[in-house]
Amino acid sequence: MNRLGPPDPGLLSLNTATVREKWSLREIIAGCARHGIPGISPWRDQLAQLGAKEAAKVIRDHGLRVTGLCRGGMFPAADRKGRRAAIDDNLRAIDDAAVLEAACLVLVVGGLPAGSRDLAGAREMVRDGVGQILDHARSAGVPLAIEAMHPMYCADRGCINTLAQALDLCDELGSGSSRRDLGVVVDVYHVWWDPGLRAQIERAGDKRLLAYHICDWLVPTTDLLLDRGMMGDGVIDLALVRSWMGEAGYRGFHEVEIFSARNWWKRDPDEVLMLCRERHQTAS
Amino acid sequence: MNRLGPPDPGLLSLNTATVREKWSLREIIAGCARHGIPGISPWRDQLAQLGAKEAAKVIRDHGLRVTGLCRGGMFPAADRKGRRAAIDDNLRAIDDAAVLEAACLVLVVGGLPAGSRDLAGAREMVRDGVGQILDHARSAGVPLAIEAMHPMYCADRGCINTLAQALDLCDELGSGSSRRDLGVVVDVYHVWWDPGLRAQIERAGDKRLLAYHICDWLVPTTDLLLDRGMMGDGVIDLALVRSWMGEAGYRGFHEVEIFSARNWWKRDPDEVLMLCRERHQTAS
Repeated sequence: MNRLGPPDPGLLSLNTATVREKWSLREIIAGCARHGIPGISPWRDQLAQLGAKEAAKVIRDHGLRVTGLCRGGMFPAADRKGRRAAIDDNLRAIDDAAVLEAACLVLVVGGLPAGSRDLAGAREMVRDGVGQILDHARSAGVPLAIEAMHPMYCADRGCINTLAQALDLCDELGSGSSRRDLGVVVDVYHVWWDPGLRAQIERAGDKRLLAYHICDWLVPTTDLLLDRGMMGDGVIDLALVRSWMGEAGYRGFHEVEIFSARNWWKRDPDEVLMLCRERHQTAS
Repeated sequence: MNRLGPPDPGLLSLNTATVREKWSLREIIAGCARHGIPGISPWRDQLAQLGAKEAAKVIRDHGLRVTGLCRGGMFPAADRKGRRAAIDDNLRAIDDAAVLEAACLVLVVGGLPAGSRDLAGAREMVRDGVGQILDHARSAGVPLAIEAMHPMYCADRGCINTLAQALDLCDELGSGSSRRDLGVVVDVYHVWWDPGLRAQIERAGDKRLLAYHICDWLVPTTDLLLDRGMMGDGVIDLALVRSWMGEAGYRGFHEVEIFSARNWWKRDPDEVLMLCRERHQTAS
Protein backbone atom coordinates (compact mmCIF):
# COMPACT_ATOMS: atom_id res chain seq x y z
CA MET A 1 0.00 0.00 0.00
CA ASN A 2 0.90 3.67 -0.19
CA ARG A 3 3.18 3.35 -3.17
CA LEU A 4 2.35 7.05 -3.55
CA GLY A 5 3.07 8.12 -0.05
CA PRO A 6 0.12 9.01 2.17
CA PRO A 7 -2.57 11.31 0.81
CA ASP A 8 -2.91 14.97 1.72
CA PRO A 9 -4.97 15.05 4.95
CA GLY A 10 -6.48 18.27 3.63
CA LEU A 11 -8.35 16.17 1.05
CA LEU A 12 -10.31 14.10 3.56
CA SER A 13 -14.08 14.41 3.51
CA LEU A 14 -16.78 12.72 5.53
CA ASN A 15 -19.96 11.42 4.04
CA THR A 16 -22.38 11.90 6.90
CA ALA A 17 -23.89 8.43 6.42
CA THR A 18 -20.81 7.18 8.26
CA VAL A 19 -21.91 8.60 11.65
CA ARG A 20 -25.48 9.83 11.16
CA GLU A 21 -27.05 7.13 13.32
CA LYS A 22 -25.73 8.91 16.42
CA TRP A 23 -25.22 12.54 15.39
CA SER A 24 -27.40 15.24 13.85
CA LEU A 25 -26.02 17.16 10.88
CA ARG A 26 -25.09 20.06 13.18
CA GLU A 27 -23.13 17.68 15.41
CA ILE A 28 -21.42 16.10 12.40
CA ILE A 29 -20.33 19.51 11.09
CA ALA A 30 -18.82 20.39 14.46
CA GLY A 31 -17.24 16.93 14.67
CA CYS A 32 -15.55 17.28 11.29
CA ALA A 33 -14.13 20.67 12.26
CA ARG A 34 -12.96 19.34 15.64
CA HIS A 35 -11.19 16.38 14.01
CA GLY A 36 -9.61 18.38 11.22
CA ILE A 37 -11.69 16.84 8.45
CA PRO A 38 -12.15 19.68 5.96
CA GLY A 39 -14.83 18.17 3.69
CA ILE A 40 -18.38 17.02 4.34
CA SER A 41 -21.12 15.43 2.24
CA PRO A 42 -24.58 15.58 3.82
CA TRP A 43 -27.75 13.62 3.05
CA ARG A 44 -30.95 15.38 2.23
CA ASP A 45 -33.13 14.18 5.10
CA GLN A 46 -30.74 15.55 7.69
CA LEU A 47 -30.30 18.63 5.56
CA ALA A 48 -34.07 19.19 5.58
CA GLN A 49 -34.13 18.96 9.37
CA LEU A 50 -31.52 21.69 9.73
CA GLY A 51 -32.60 23.69 6.68
CA ALA A 52 -30.35 24.14 3.66
CA LYS A 53 -29.55 27.81 4.33
CA GLU A 54 -28.78 27.25 7.99
CA ALA A 55 -26.68 24.21 7.11
CA ALA A 56 -24.76 26.21 4.52
CA LYS A 57 -24.06 28.89 7.14
CA VAL A 58 -22.94 26.43 9.83
CA ILE A 59 -20.74 24.56 7.35
CA ARG A 60 -19.19 27.84 6.18
CA ASP A 61 -18.69 29.03 9.75
CA HIS A 62 -16.75 25.84 10.47
CA GLY A 63 -14.58 26.30 7.40
CA LEU A 64 -15.74 23.12 5.66
CA ARG A 65 -16.29 22.43 1.98
CA VAL A 66 -19.27 20.43 0.71
CA THR A 67 -17.86 17.67 -1.49
CA GLY A 68 -21.28 16.44 -2.60
CA LEU A 69 -24.94 16.30 -1.71
CA CYS A 70 -26.54 12.86 -1.35
CA ARG A 71 -28.63 12.34 -3.24
CA GLY A 72 -30.68 12.83 -6.35
CA GLY A 73 -31.64 10.15 -8.84
CA MET A 74 -34.20 7.38 -8.40
CA PHE A 75 -35.67 8.18 -11.81
CA PRO A 76 -37.47 4.98 -12.87
CA ALA A 77 -41.09 4.66 -11.79
CA ALA A 78 -44.04 2.58 -12.92
CA ASP A 79 -46.05 5.51 -14.25
CA ARG A 80 -45.69 9.03 -15.62
CA LYS A 81 -46.79 10.58 -12.34
CA GLY A 82 -44.06 8.77 -10.44
CA ARG A 83 -41.41 9.78 -12.94
CA ARG A 84 -42.61 13.41 -12.79
CA ALA A 85 -42.41 13.36 -8.99
CA ALA A 86 -38.84 12.08 -9.25
CA ILE A 87 -37.91 14.94 -11.58
CA ASP A 88 -39.44 17.50 -9.23
CA ASP A 89 -37.55 16.03 -6.32
CA ASN A 90 -34.30 16.18 -8.27
CA LEU A 91 -34.88 19.83 -9.14
CA ARG A 92 -35.25 20.60 -5.43
CA ALA A 93 -32.07 18.62 -4.71
CA ILE A 94 -30.21 20.73 -7.26
CA ASP A 95 -31.42 23.90 -5.53
CA ASP A 96 -30.24 22.60 -2.16
CA ALA A 97 -26.87 21.66 -3.64
CA ALA A 98 -26.55 25.18 -5.02
CA VAL A 99 -27.26 26.70 -1.60
CA LEU A 100 -24.54 24.48 -0.12
CA GLU A 101 -22.15 25.29 -2.99
CA ALA A 102 -21.72 21.52 -3.21
CA ALA A 103 -19.07 20.18 -5.57
CA CYS A 104 -21.76 17.94 -7.09
CA LEU A 105 -25.16 16.38 -6.63
CA VAL A 106 -24.69 12.61 -6.37
CA LEU A 107 -27.17 10.66 -8.48
CA VAL A 108 -28.15 7.20 -7.29
CA VAL A 109 -30.12 6.57 -10.41
CA GLY A 110 -32.66 3.97 -9.26
CA GLY A 111 -33.43 0.40 -10.28
CA LEU A 112 -36.42 -1.40 -11.74
CA PRO A 113 -39.87 0.04 -11.09
CA ALA A 114 -41.94 -2.20 -8.78
CA GLY A 115 -43.12 -5.29 -10.62
CA SER A 116 -40.98 -4.63 -13.68
CA ARG A 117 -38.41 -6.87 -15.33
CA ASP A 118 -37.65 -4.36 -18.06
CA LEU A 119 -34.05 -3.45 -17.30
CA ALA A 120 -33.45 -1.77 -20.64
CA GLY A 121 -36.57 0.31 -20.05
CA ALA A 122 -35.39 1.34 -16.59
CA ARG A 123 -32.08 2.42 -18.08
CA GLU A 124 -33.93 4.54 -20.63
CA MET A 125 -35.88 6.18 -17.80
CA VAL A 126 -32.58 7.03 -16.14
CA ARG A 127 -31.22 8.58 -19.32
CA ASP A 128 -34.43 10.57 -19.81
CA GLY A 129 -34.45 11.67 -16.18
CA VAL A 130 -30.87 12.91 -16.18
CA GLY A 131 -31.58 14.67 -19.46
CA GLN A 132 -34.58 16.43 -17.95
CA ILE A 133 -32.74 17.89 -14.97
CA LEU A 134 -29.48 18.78 -16.65
CA ASP A 135 -30.46 22.28 -17.82
CA HIS A 136 -31.58 23.22 -14.34
CA ALA A 137 -28.33 21.87 -12.91
CA ARG A 138 -26.32 23.90 -15.42
CA SER A 139 -28.24 27.07 -14.56
CA ALA A 140 -27.69 26.44 -10.87
CA GLY A 141 -24.00 25.69 -11.37
CA VAL A 142 -24.35 22.23 -9.82
CA PRO A 143 -22.48 19.41 -11.56
CA LEU A 144 -24.43 16.13 -11.64
CA ALA A 145 -22.40 13.07 -10.63
CA ILE A 146 -23.74 9.68 -11.71
CA GLU A 147 -22.76 7.01 -9.23
CA ALA A 148 -22.04 3.69 -10.91
CA MET A 149 -23.63 1.28 -8.45
CA HIS A 150 -22.42 -2.22 -7.62
CA PRO A 151 -24.32 -4.77 -9.73
CA MET A 152 -25.87 -6.23 -6.56
CA TYR A 153 -27.95 -3.02 -6.38
CA CYS A 154 -29.09 -3.18 -9.99
CA ALA A 155 -32.67 -4.21 -9.20
CA ASP A 156 -33.49 -1.83 -6.39
CA ARG A 157 -31.02 1.08 -6.22
CA GLY A 158 -29.11 1.76 -9.37
CA CYS A 159 -29.19 0.19 -12.83
CA ILE A 160 -26.06 2.02 -14.00
CA ASN A 161 -23.53 -0.55 -12.88
CA THR A 162 -20.16 0.23 -14.38
CA LEU A 163 -18.14 3.37 -14.93
CA ALA A 164 -18.20 2.61 -18.65
CA GLN A 165 -21.99 2.68 -18.63
CA ALA A 166 -22.05 5.93 -16.61
CA LEU A 167 -19.53 7.54 -18.92
CA ASP A 168 -21.51 6.49 -21.99
CA LEU A 169 -24.41 8.40 -20.48
CA CYS A 170 -22.17 11.42 -19.85
CA ASP A 171 -21.01 11.31 -23.46
CA GLU A 172 -24.60 11.15 -24.68
CA LEU A 173 -26.02 13.90 -22.48
CA GLY A 174 -23.19 16.03 -21.16
CA SER A 175 -21.55 19.07 -22.59
CA GLY A 176 -18.96 18.41 -25.25
CA SER A 177 -16.95 21.37 -24.00
CA SER A 178 -14.67 21.41 -21.01
CA ARG A 179 -17.57 22.43 -18.77
CA ARG A 180 -18.02 20.08 -15.81
CA ASP A 181 -21.77 19.72 -16.01
CA LEU A 182 -22.14 15.95 -15.86
CA GLY A 183 -19.73 13.35 -14.58
CA VAL A 184 -19.31 10.38 -12.29
CA VAL A 185 -18.69 9.38 -8.71
CA VAL A 186 -16.01 6.76 -8.36
CA ASP A 187 -16.95 4.86 -5.21
CA VAL A 188 -14.47 2.07 -4.67
CA TYR A 189 -17.10 -0.13 -3.04
CA HIS A 190 -19.15 -0.18 -6.22
CA VAL A 191 -16.39 -0.50 -8.81
CA TRP A 192 -13.31 -2.11 -7.26
CA TRP A 193 -14.01 -5.46 -8.96
CA ASP A 194 -14.27 -4.01 -12.48
CA PRO A 195 -11.53 -5.29 -14.80
CA GLY A 196 -12.00 -2.08 -16.81
CA LEU A 197 -11.65 0.25 -13.81
CA ARG A 198 -8.30 1.79 -14.62
CA ALA A 199 -9.16 2.35 -18.28
CA GLN A 200 -12.51 3.93 -17.42
CA ILE A 201 -11.02 6.26 -14.81
CA GLU A 202 -8.53 7.35 -17.44
CA ARG A 203 -11.34 7.78 -19.96
CA ALA A 204 -13.28 9.93 -17.51
CA GLY A 205 -10.40 12.28 -16.85
CA ASP A 206 -10.50 15.37 -14.70
CA LYS A 207 -13.60 16.73 -16.43
CA ARG A 208 -15.82 13.77 -15.52
CA LEU A 209 -14.30 12.72 -12.18
CA LEU A 210 -16.50 14.69 -9.80
CA ALA A 211 -16.14 12.71 -6.58
CA TYR A 212 -14.11 9.87 -5.09
CA HIS A 213 -15.64 7.78 -2.29
CA ILE A 214 -13.65 5.37 -0.16
CA CYS A 215 -14.33 2.56 2.32
CA ASP A 216 -13.47 -1.15 2.05
CA TRP A 217 -14.95 -4.49 0.98
CA LEU A 218 -15.08 -6.95 3.87
CA VAL A 219 -14.59 -10.71 3.55
CA PRO A 220 -17.04 -12.08 4.38
CA THR A 221 -19.67 -9.40 3.72
CA THR A 222 -22.75 -10.20 5.77
CA ASP A 223 -25.27 -7.74 4.36
CA LEU A 224 -25.74 -6.39 0.85
CA LEU A 225 -26.21 -2.80 1.99
CA LEU A 226 -25.00 -2.18 5.52
CA ASP A 227 -21.72 -4.04 5.93
CA ARG A 228 -19.08 -1.79 4.44
CA GLY A 229 -15.64 -1.78 5.99
CA MET A 230 -13.26 0.92 7.23
CA MET A 231 -10.30 1.53 4.93
CA GLY A 232 -7.69 -1.11 5.62
CA ASP A 233 -10.09 -3.70 7.00
CA GLY A 234 -10.95 -5.24 3.64
CA VAL A 235 -9.51 -6.28 0.32
CA ILE A 236 -9.56 -3.18 -1.87
CA ASP A 237 -6.16 -1.84 -2.91
CA LEU A 238 -7.14 1.75 -2.18
CA ALA A 239 -3.71 3.23 -2.83
CA LEU A 240 -3.75 1.70 -6.29
CA VAL A 241 -7.14 3.17 -7.17
CA ARG A 242 -6.02 6.54 -5.76
CA SER A 243 -2.98 6.40 -8.01
CA TRP A 244 -5.25 5.83 -11.03
CA MET A 245 -7.42 8.77 -10.00
CA GLY A 246 -4.34 10.95 -9.75
CA GLU A 247 -3.01 9.82 -13.12
CA ALA A 248 -6.34 10.78 -14.64
CA GLY A 249 -6.03 14.28 -13.24
CA TYR A 250 -8.34 14.08 -10.24
CA ARG A 251 -7.27 16.50 -7.50
CA GLY A 252 -10.44 16.49 -5.40
CA PHE A 253 -11.45 15.14 -2.01
CA HIS A 254 -11.42 11.58 -0.70
CA GLU A 255 -14.82 11.09 0.85
CA VAL A 256 -15.27 8.34 3.43
CA GLU A 257 -18.68 6.69 3.19
CA ILE A 258 -19.29 3.69 5.43
CA PHE A 259 -22.67 2.03 5.86
CA SER A 260 -22.08 -0.36 8.73
CA ALA A 261 -25.04 -1.32 10.90
CA ARG A 262 -23.19 -4.02 12.80
CA ASN A 263 -20.00 -2.12 13.59
CA TRP A 264 -19.19 1.53 12.86
CA TRP A 265 -22.70 2.87 13.30
CA LYS A 266 -22.66 1.50 16.85
CA ARG A 267 -19.42 3.19 17.84
CA ASP A 268 -18.78 6.60 19.36
CA PRO A 269 -18.63 8.96 16.35
CA ASP A 270 -15.56 10.71 17.76
CA GLU A 271 -13.75 7.37 17.71
CA VAL A 272 -14.94 6.76 14.14
CA LEU A 273 -13.74 10.15 12.92
CA MET A 274 -10.33 9.70 14.54
CA LEU A 275 -9.96 6.36 12.83
CA CYS A 276 -11.12 7.77 9.49
CA ARG A 277 -8.33 10.33 9.68
CA GLU A 278 -5.76 7.71 10.67
CA ARG A 279 -6.78 5.14 8.06
CA HIS A 280 -6.96 7.78 5.37
CA GLN A 281 -3.25 8.25 5.98
CA THR A 282 -2.20 4.66 6.56
CA ALA A 283 -4.55 2.59 4.42
CA SER A 284 -5.80 4.54 1.44
CA MET B 1 -42.35 -13.17 -20.83
CA ASN B 2 -42.33 -16.12 -23.17
CA ARG B 3 -42.16 -14.08 -26.32
CA LEU B 4 -40.62 -17.28 -27.70
CA GLY B 5 -43.25 -19.65 -26.50
CA PRO B 6 -42.32 -22.00 -23.67
CA PRO B 7 -39.02 -23.86 -23.83
CA ASP B 8 -38.69 -27.53 -24.73
CA PRO B 9 -39.25 -29.45 -21.46
CA GLY B 10 -36.69 -31.92 -22.77
CA LEU B 11 -34.01 -29.28 -22.17
CA LEU B 12 -34.56 -28.98 -18.42
CA SER B 13 -31.68 -29.93 -16.18
CA LEU B 14 -31.31 -29.87 -12.42
CA ASN B 15 -28.22 -28.64 -10.68
CA THR B 16 -28.19 -30.83 -7.60
CA ALA B 17 -27.40 -27.86 -5.32
CA THR B 18 -31.10 -27.07 -5.60
CA VAL B 19 -32.22 -30.06 -3.49
CA ARG B 20 -29.04 -31.56 -2.03
CA GLU B 21 -29.77 -30.47 1.51
CA LYS B 22 -32.43 -33.20 1.75
CA TRP B 23 -31.45 -35.79 -0.86
CA SER B 24 -28.37 -37.84 -1.65
CA LEU B 25 -27.12 -37.90 -5.23
CA ARG B 26 -28.75 -41.28 -5.75
CA GLU B 27 -32.08 -39.89 -4.56
CA ILE B 28 -31.70 -36.82 -6.77
CA ILE B 29 -31.03 -38.97 -9.85
CA ALA B 30 -34.15 -41.00 -9.16
CA GLY B 31 -36.09 -37.82 -8.48
CA CYS B 32 -35.11 -36.25 -11.79
CA ALA B 33 -36.15 -39.37 -13.66
CA ARG B 34 -39.44 -39.54 -11.74
CA HIS B 35 -40.26 -35.91 -12.53
CA GLY B 36 -39.25 -36.09 -16.18
CA ILE B 37 -36.20 -33.87 -15.81
CA PRO B 38 -33.73 -35.28 -18.35
CA GLY B 39 -30.56 -33.41 -17.30
CA ILE B 40 -28.55 -33.36 -14.10
CA SER B 41 -25.47 -31.53 -12.87
CA PRO B 42 -23.89 -33.01 -9.74
CA TRP B 43 -21.43 -31.54 -7.26
CA ARG B 44 -18.19 -33.30 -6.49
CA ASP B 45 -18.66 -33.94 -2.79
CA GLN B 46 -21.86 -35.89 -3.37
CA LEU B 47 -20.24 -37.52 -6.38
CA ALA B 48 -17.37 -38.71 -4.19
CA GLN B 49 -19.81 -40.25 -1.73
CA LEU B 50 -21.48 -42.32 -4.44
CA GLY B 51 -18.34 -42.84 -6.51
CA ALA B 52 -17.97 -41.45 -10.03
CA LYS B 53 -18.32 -44.80 -11.81
CA GLU B 54 -21.35 -45.86 -9.81
CA ALA B 55 -22.90 -42.41 -10.32
CA ALA B 56 -22.28 -42.62 -14.06
CA LYS B 57 -24.00 -46.01 -14.13
CA VAL B 58 -27.01 -44.91 -12.10
CA ILE B 59 -27.38 -41.74 -14.16
CA ARG B 60 -27.17 -43.76 -17.40
CA ASP B 61 -29.64 -46.35 -16.08
CA HIS B 62 -32.13 -43.54 -15.44
CA GLY B 63 -31.64 -42.14 -18.92
CA LEU B 64 -30.26 -38.78 -17.78
CA ARG B 65 -27.60 -36.59 -19.37
CA VAL B 66 -24.93 -34.82 -17.29
CA THR B 67 -25.05 -31.16 -18.26
CA GLY B 68 -22.05 -30.21 -16.18
CA LEU B 69 -19.93 -31.18 -13.21
CA CYS B 70 -19.61 -28.66 -10.38
CA ARG B 71 -16.93 -27.71 -9.92
CA GLY B 72 -13.31 -27.08 -10.74
CA GLY B 73 -11.49 -23.80 -10.39
CA MET B 74 -10.37 -22.04 -7.20
CA PHE B 75 -6.93 -21.46 -8.71
CA PRO B 76 -5.50 -18.52 -6.72
CA ALA B 77 -3.57 -19.41 -3.58
CA ALA B 78 -1.04 -17.62 -1.42
CA ASP B 79 1.85 -19.93 -2.27
CA ARG B 80 3.10 -22.31 -4.93
CA LYS B 81 2.09 -25.36 -2.95
CA GLY B 82 -1.49 -24.14 -2.70
CA ARG B 83 -1.65 -23.40 -6.41
CA ARG B 84 -0.22 -26.83 -7.21
CA ALA B 85 -2.83 -28.49 -5.00
CA ALA B 86 -5.54 -26.61 -6.88
CA ILE B 87 -4.20 -27.85 -10.20
CA ASP B 88 -4.12 -31.45 -8.97
CA ASP B 89 -7.67 -31.15 -7.72
CA ASN B 90 -8.78 -29.79 -11.08
CA LEU B 91 -7.13 -32.69 -12.91
CA ARG B 92 -9.11 -35.11 -10.76
CA ALA B 93 -12.28 -33.14 -11.47
CA ILE B 94 -11.63 -33.47 -15.20
CA ASP B 95 -11.27 -37.23 -14.81
CA ASP B 96 -14.56 -37.42 -12.93
CA ALA B 97 -16.26 -35.28 -15.58
CA ALA B 98 -14.98 -37.67 -18.24
CA VAL B 99 -16.37 -40.68 -16.39
CA LEU B 100 -19.76 -38.95 -16.23
CA GLU B 101 -19.52 -37.89 -19.89
CA ALA B 102 -20.38 -34.42 -18.60
CA ALA B 103 -21.06 -31.70 -21.12
CA CYS B 104 -18.51 -29.56 -19.29
CA LEU B 105 -16.57 -29.02 -16.10
CA VAL B 106 -17.79 -25.79 -14.50
CA LEU B 107 -14.92 -23.58 -13.31
CA VAL B 108 -15.60 -21.29 -10.36
CA VAL B 109 -12.23 -19.69 -10.69
CA GLY B 110 -11.58 -18.40 -7.18
CA GLY B 111 -11.01 -14.97 -5.66
CA LEU B 112 -8.18 -13.31 -3.78
CA PRO B 113 -5.78 -15.48 -1.80
CA ALA B 114 -6.14 -14.97 1.95
CA GLY B 115 -4.65 -11.65 3.02
CA SER B 116 -4.13 -10.43 -0.55
CA ARG B 117 -5.40 -7.25 -2.18
CA ASP B 118 -3.74 -8.05 -5.49
CA LEU B 119 -6.72 -8.51 -7.76
CA ALA B 120 -4.69 -8.35 -10.96
CA GLY B 121 -2.38 -11.00 -9.53
CA ALA B 122 -5.31 -13.27 -8.66
CA ARG B 123 -6.60 -12.93 -12.20
CA GLU B 124 -3.20 -13.95 -13.53
CA MET B 125 -3.27 -17.02 -11.29
CA VAL B 126 -6.64 -17.91 -12.81
CA ARG B 127 -5.30 -17.55 -16.33
CA ASP B 128 -2.25 -19.65 -15.48
CA GLY B 129 -4.38 -22.27 -13.75
CA VAL B 130 -6.80 -22.69 -16.63
CA GLY B 131 -3.83 -22.85 -18.96
CA GLN B 132 -2.26 -25.63 -16.93
CA ILE B 133 -5.30 -27.92 -16.96
CA LEU B 134 -6.47 -27.32 -20.51
CA ASP B 135 -4.32 -29.99 -22.18
CA HIS B 136 -5.57 -32.64 -19.77
CA ALA B 137 -9.14 -31.51 -20.38
CA ARG B 138 -8.63 -31.76 -24.14
CA SER B 139 -7.20 -35.25 -23.83
CA ALA B 140 -10.09 -36.30 -21.65
CA GLY B 141 -12.64 -34.74 -24.01
CA VAL B 142 -14.02 -32.52 -21.25
CA PRO B 143 -14.81 -28.91 -22.23
CA LEU B 144 -13.93 -26.39 -19.51
CA ALA B 145 -16.63 -23.81 -18.80
CA ILE B 146 -15.57 -20.61 -17.05
CA GLU B 147 -18.39 -19.25 -14.93
CA ALA B 148 -18.43 -15.46 -14.91
CA MET B 149 -19.29 -14.76 -11.28
CA HIS B 150 -21.37 -11.89 -9.95
CA PRO B 151 -19.07 -9.05 -8.84
CA MET B 152 -20.23 -9.51 -5.24
CA TYR B 153 -18.23 -12.77 -5.27
CA CYS B 154 -15.07 -11.19 -6.64
CA ALA B 155 -13.12 -11.31 -3.38
CA ASP B 156 -13.90 -14.82 -2.22
CA ARG B 157 -15.29 -16.97 -5.03
CA GLY B 158 -14.55 -15.78 -8.51
CA CYS B 159 -12.55 -12.84 -9.86
CA ILE B 160 -13.76 -13.33 -13.43
CA ASN B 161 -16.84 -11.14 -13.19
CA THR B 162 -18.22 -10.50 -16.65
CA LEU B 163 -18.80 -12.61 -19.73
CA ALA B 164 -16.47 -10.26 -21.61
CA GLN B 165 -13.67 -11.04 -19.19
CA ALA B 166 -14.33 -14.79 -19.40
CA LEU B 167 -14.41 -14.68 -23.18
CA ASP B 168 -11.15 -12.71 -23.28
CA LEU B 169 -9.63 -15.61 -21.37
CA CYS B 170 -11.14 -18.10 -23.81
CA ASP B 171 -9.69 -16.16 -26.72
CA GLU B 172 -6.28 -16.11 -25.07
CA LEU B 173 -6.13 -19.77 -24.07
CA GLY B 174 -8.68 -21.70 -26.06
CA SER B 175 -8.44 -23.37 -29.40
CA GLY B 176 -8.77 -21.10 -32.39
CA SER B 177 -10.50 -23.88 -34.28
CA SER B 178 -14.12 -24.89 -33.95
CA ARG B 179 -13.20 -27.32 -31.17
CA ARG B 180 -15.24 -26.71 -28.02
CA ASP B 181 -12.40 -27.01 -25.53
CA LEU B 182 -12.92 -23.86 -23.47
CA GLY B 183 -16.01 -21.73 -23.07
CA VAL B 184 -18.34 -20.14 -20.58
CA VAL B 185 -21.29 -20.80 -18.33
CA VAL B 186 -24.00 -18.19 -18.65
CA ASP B 187 -25.68 -18.15 -15.24
CA VAL B 188 -28.38 -15.51 -15.25
CA TYR B 189 -27.89 -14.83 -11.55
CA HIS B 190 -24.32 -13.71 -12.15
CA VAL B 191 -24.75 -11.74 -15.36
CA TRP B 192 -28.34 -10.48 -15.67
CA TRP B 193 -27.33 -6.90 -14.72
CA ASP B 194 -24.59 -6.61 -17.36
CA PRO B 195 -25.34 -3.93 -19.95
CA GLY B 196 -23.10 -5.89 -22.34
CA LEU B 197 -24.88 -9.21 -21.82
CA ARG B 198 -26.56 -9.57 -25.18
CA ALA B 199 -23.45 -8.54 -27.11
CA GLN B 200 -21.24 -10.94 -25.15
CA ILE B 201 -23.63 -13.87 -25.58
CA GLU B 202 -23.56 -13.15 -29.30
CA ARG B 203 -19.77 -12.91 -29.22
CA ALA B 204 -19.51 -16.24 -27.44
CA GLY B 205 -21.65 -18.06 -29.97
CA ASP B 206 -22.39 -21.74 -30.02
CA LYS B 207 -18.74 -22.71 -29.68
CA ARG B 208 -18.22 -20.95 -26.34
CA LEU B 209 -21.70 -21.30 -24.80
CA LEU B 210 -21.24 -24.51 -22.85
CA ALA B 211 -23.96 -24.20 -20.21
CA TYR B 212 -26.95 -22.05 -19.31
CA HIS B 213 -28.00 -21.78 -15.66
CA ILE B 214 -31.30 -20.31 -14.53
CA CYS B 215 -32.90 -19.11 -11.30
CA ASP B 216 -34.05 -15.61 -10.32
CA TRP B 217 -32.86 -12.49 -8.49
CA LEU B 218 -35.10 -11.69 -5.51
CA VAL B 219 -35.94 -8.18 -4.30
CA PRO B 220 -34.89 -7.82 -1.59
CA THR B 221 -32.03 -10.32 -1.52
CA THR B 222 -31.24 -11.15 2.09
CA ASP B 223 -28.00 -13.11 1.72
CA LEU B 224 -25.14 -12.75 -0.73
CA LEU B 225 -24.87 -16.48 -1.36
CA LEU B 226 -27.93 -18.41 -0.29
CA ASP B 227 -30.97 -16.39 -1.29
CA ARG B 228 -31.55 -17.17 -4.94
CA GLY B 229 -35.08 -17.28 -6.23
CA MET B 230 -37.18 -19.74 -8.24
CA MET B 231 -37.76 -18.68 -11.83
CA GLY B 232 -40.62 -16.20 -11.91
CA ASP B 233 -40.21 -15.03 -8.32
CA GLY B 234 -37.69 -12.30 -9.11
CA VAL B 235 -36.80 -9.60 -11.59
CA ILE B 236 -34.77 -11.33 -14.31
CA ASP B 237 -36.38 -11.38 -17.75
CA LEU B 238 -35.47 -15.02 -18.32
CA ALA B 239 -37.33 -15.37 -21.62
CA LEU B 240 -35.33 -12.46 -22.99
CA VAL B 241 -31.99 -13.98 -22.01
CA ARG B 242 -33.12 -17.34 -23.41
CA SER B 243 -33.94 -15.62 -26.69
CA TRP B 244 -30.41 -14.16 -26.80
CA MET B 245 -28.93 -17.60 -26.10
CA GLY B 246 -30.98 -19.04 -28.95
CA GLU B 247 -30.00 -16.28 -31.36
CA ALA B 248 -26.36 -17.01 -30.55
CA GLY B 249 -26.84 -20.64 -31.51
CA TYR B 250 -27.11 -22.27 -28.10
CA ARG B 251 -29.22 -25.44 -28.23
CA GLY B 252 -28.24 -26.98 -24.89
CA PHE B 253 -29.92 -27.55 -21.57
CA HIS B 254 -31.45 -25.03 -19.16
CA GLU B 255 -30.02 -25.94 -15.78
CA VAL B 256 -31.87 -24.83 -12.66
CA GLU B 257 -29.48 -23.92 -9.85
CA ILE B 258 -31.03 -22.44 -6.71
CA PHE B 259 -29.11 -21.81 -3.50
CA SER B 260 -31.85 -20.94 -1.04
CA ALA B 261 -31.22 -21.63 2.63
CA ARG B 262 -34.34 -19.83 3.85
CA ASN B 263 -36.84 -21.27 1.40
CA TRP B 264 -36.32 -23.95 -1.25
CA TRP B 265 -33.76 -25.98 0.67
CA LYS B 266 -36.32 -26.39 3.43
CA ARG B 267 -39.06 -27.73 1.16
CA ASP B 268 -39.88 -31.26 0.13
CA PRO B 269 -37.61 -31.91 -2.89
CA ASP B 270 -40.47 -33.52 -4.82
CA GLU B 271 -42.39 -30.27 -4.50
CA VAL B 272 -39.33 -28.30 -5.62
CA LEU B 273 -38.80 -30.47 -8.70
CA MET B 274 -42.45 -30.20 -9.69
CA LEU B 275 -42.24 -26.43 -9.45
CA CYS B 276 -38.96 -26.35 -11.38
CA ARG B 277 -40.69 -28.15 -14.24
CA GLU B 278 -43.69 -25.85 -14.10
CA ARG B 279 -41.74 -22.61 -13.85
CA HIS B 280 -39.37 -23.70 -16.59
CA GLN B 281 -42.44 -23.71 -18.83
CA THR B 282 -44.24 -20.66 -17.51
CA ALA B 283 -41.50 -18.31 -16.35
CA SER B 284 -38.28 -18.88 -18.25
